[in-house]
Amino acid sequence: MNEKEALRWLANRMPVGDDCYVLEELGTNLLLTTDMLHRKTDFPAEATAYSRGWRSVAVSLSDVAGMGGIPIAVLIAYGAPDFDKAELEEFLSGAEEVCSLSGCKIVGGDLDHHDELTITTSALGKAENPVLRSGANPDDLVAVTGDLGRTGAALKLFANGETDLANKLFQFEPRIEEGKQLGKFSTSMMDISDGLARSLHQISESSNVGFRITEKQLPYASTVDKLANTAEEKRELTLFTGEDFELLATIPPEHEFELAKLGVKTIGKVTARDGVKMAINGEIIKLEDRGYVH
Amino acid sequence: MNEKEALRWLANRMPVGDDCYVLEELGTNLLLTTDMLHRKTDFPAEATAYSRGWRSVAVSLSDVAGMGGIPIAVLIAYGAPDFDKAELEEFLSGAEEVCSLSGCKIVGGDLDHHDELTITTSALGKAENPVLRSGANPDDLVAVTGDLGRTGAALKLFANGETDLANKLFQFEPRIEEGKQLGKFSTSMMDISDGLARSLHQISESSNVGFRITEKQLPYASTVDKLANTAEEKRELTLFTGEDFELLATIPPEHEFELAKLGVKTIGKVTARDGVKMAINGEIIKLEDRGYVH
Repeated sequence: MNEKEALRWLANRMPVGDDCYVLEELGTNLLLTTDMLHRKTDFPAEATAYSRGWRSVAVSLSDVAGMGGIPIAVLIAYGAPDFDKAELEEFLSGAEEVCSLSGCKIVGGDLDHHDELTITTSALGKAENPVLRSGANPDDLVAVTGDLGRTGAALKLFANGETDLANKLFQFEPRIEEGKQLGKFSTSMMDISDGLARSLHQISESSNVGFRITEKQLPYASTVDKLANTAEEKRELTLFTGEDFELLATIPPEHEFELAKLGVKTIGKVTARDGVKMAINGEIIKLEDRGYVH
Repeated sequence: MNEKEALRWLANRMPVGDDCYVLEELGTNLLLTTDMLHRKTDFPAEATAYSRGWRSVAVSLSDVAGMGGIPIAVLIAYGAPDFDKAELEEFLSGAEEVCSLSGCKIVGGDLDHHDELTITTSALGKAENPVLRSGANPDDLVAVTGDLGRTGAALKLFANGETDLANKLFQFEPRIEEGKQLGKFSTSMMDISDGLARSLHQISESSNVGFRITEKQLPYASTVDKLANTAEEKRELTLFTGEDFELLATIPPEHEFELAKLGVKTIGKVTARDGVKMAINGEIIKLEDRGYVH
């Protein structure tokens, strides 16, 4: 099985399917999530140890944000061929910085000798009313936080040798506050870890709805505009590259004003089960269900 | 830095040092722990997927037991070169079985393509009064649960091709109930993940005490007796091989009766800072600070 098939099989076997698992315990809803990252797939050679620390923790915090939750604590398991003090210090600084932005802390972990740099982060969070992927309704608005294509642009910059800017783009801020606010009225939500296209398909499957989004409304990161040579490439970086870690949410139309106040962009609306479609200059295309494969 | 040096450096940098991190939150003490295991170091070629699932989860549950805690939930991040349905099913069965023995559940995880089979488990537990490594006092009794040398014996059996028995020994039961009972009166406790010798040194460092243990009192696993060719090898398998995941605890002498009722063995006593020593046939030796390196 490939990863997508394996995940589908797993979803019939275990409680997976949302960004975090929700556990009713200790008088609240605990949120639990874990993510494995490694050198080959997740860390370009020129990403700094600081970026690696930041990003490893941020992906798990982003999962908590995707449920409208507040992170409490993060664990890090760090496997590497050797343990260099300066590198570990830099890694931890990045990890601690992004934690402190989100008001949570690193509470320990594990060190392991491993041929390939491999980092697993796990986060514990809580939410009074966690937002799942399954509640979207036809006519809901579709909204995204921030800009899209940031990671796609960073990967291109790394390949071009523009490592400073690439590292900066690689350090994204998990949308904890936005998630908390959106969580108050969103019918479904998730973080865009596999790209916007794949995320739309994931909510589509979980909520049994369709989507119509408009390309013109997509908030492109400004670096994407500069870097993409063609409209095609721009789409690739923005819709399919993934790992942008912005939030995708569906919202009843009466909350449009709140969206504007949050600075969150509307990109289309939910439809009744007729696929995931996008308008490009007056033409309607089906948005493919593909994205980042971990 | 090697792993031991790196851990020491990290302990000055972050809150690590006990089997779990203790977080006062939601009206209780939450316990958090994470462990990374991988093919090369942790899973002999002949270990079944069922054993791998069992053991991956059991190491984290054992950390919760080592604090006298009750496990609530486990997360699994599973990295592998490919995802085979039968193998995943077997892995999950082992993982679920050991979870159910401990009254807790697997609440999701992550799948990742990885060149080397790599599994990170994280556990969330709770304890009213978590037992740390730092509370041992001179004249306390030293006690261990179960038998020692089980994993050392299993590794030897794997090497000899006796895979059925080896797999059976590899599936150890985390000492949750014993940890809970011992936790009521122990002054320090931990699981013996790096071997008895290393664990005694770890409590010695944290509590600023010494130890005198008596070789004759050590509870050897019966397979160790059969497999070890010399007294030297028996010591190696029992004291230094590690990954036995029994509990080591120090207990005020007035609780000796409770120990007997629990079926826990006394192996010596705590002394005032004069090193970790063992009596072998009337001779006193210093017990080296070495053990399993992950």
